[in-house]
Amino acid sequence: MRAKIYITLKSGILDPQGKAIEHALSVLGFKGVKEARVGKYMELVLAPGPIDQVEKSIKEMCEKLLANTVIETYRYELDPKE
Amino acid sequence: MRAKIYITLKSGILDPQGKAIEHALSVLGFKGVKEARVGKYMELVLAPGPIDQVEKSIKEMCEKLLANTVIETYRYELDPKE
Repeated sequence: MRAKIYITLKSGILDPQGKAIEHALSVLGFKGVKEARVGKYMELVLAPGPIDQVEKSIKEMCEKLLANTVIETYRYELDPKE
Repeated sequence: MRAKIYITLKSGILDPQGKAIEHALSVLGFKGVKEARVGKYMELVLAPGPIDQVEKSIKEMCEKLLANTVIETYRYELDPKE
């Protein structure tokens, strides 16, 4: 079972990495970039199990370790077939 | 126009961050995690334009700056309505 987890900064939180990328892209000549936000993308291969229990443990993993829920939000997609 | 970019390590490339997360999750008591891979997730807000040109510049941005194409691969989703 494969879980795809997306962790992004909450809106309103300054994203220095994003700002650095915006600047670098404009220096490289890319003019149409209005904003860049950078986050984390994780893929977890999990042992198969009942979907609700797997989802519960994904939420716990995100809240305990993977995301800093003070400044970040997370969302995930679960692919039971993979 | 919003582009969502996913940058991940090529398969076969060692992912020390992923290994550290696997270990930390097992220490925290999450037993069903077989593998963890960590990548980057970026959202770019781009000036509207012809789709093919926007896609061309996204590819260029990825290849010139956002991804290290020696060890990473990238994919993107483009949402013209946002």
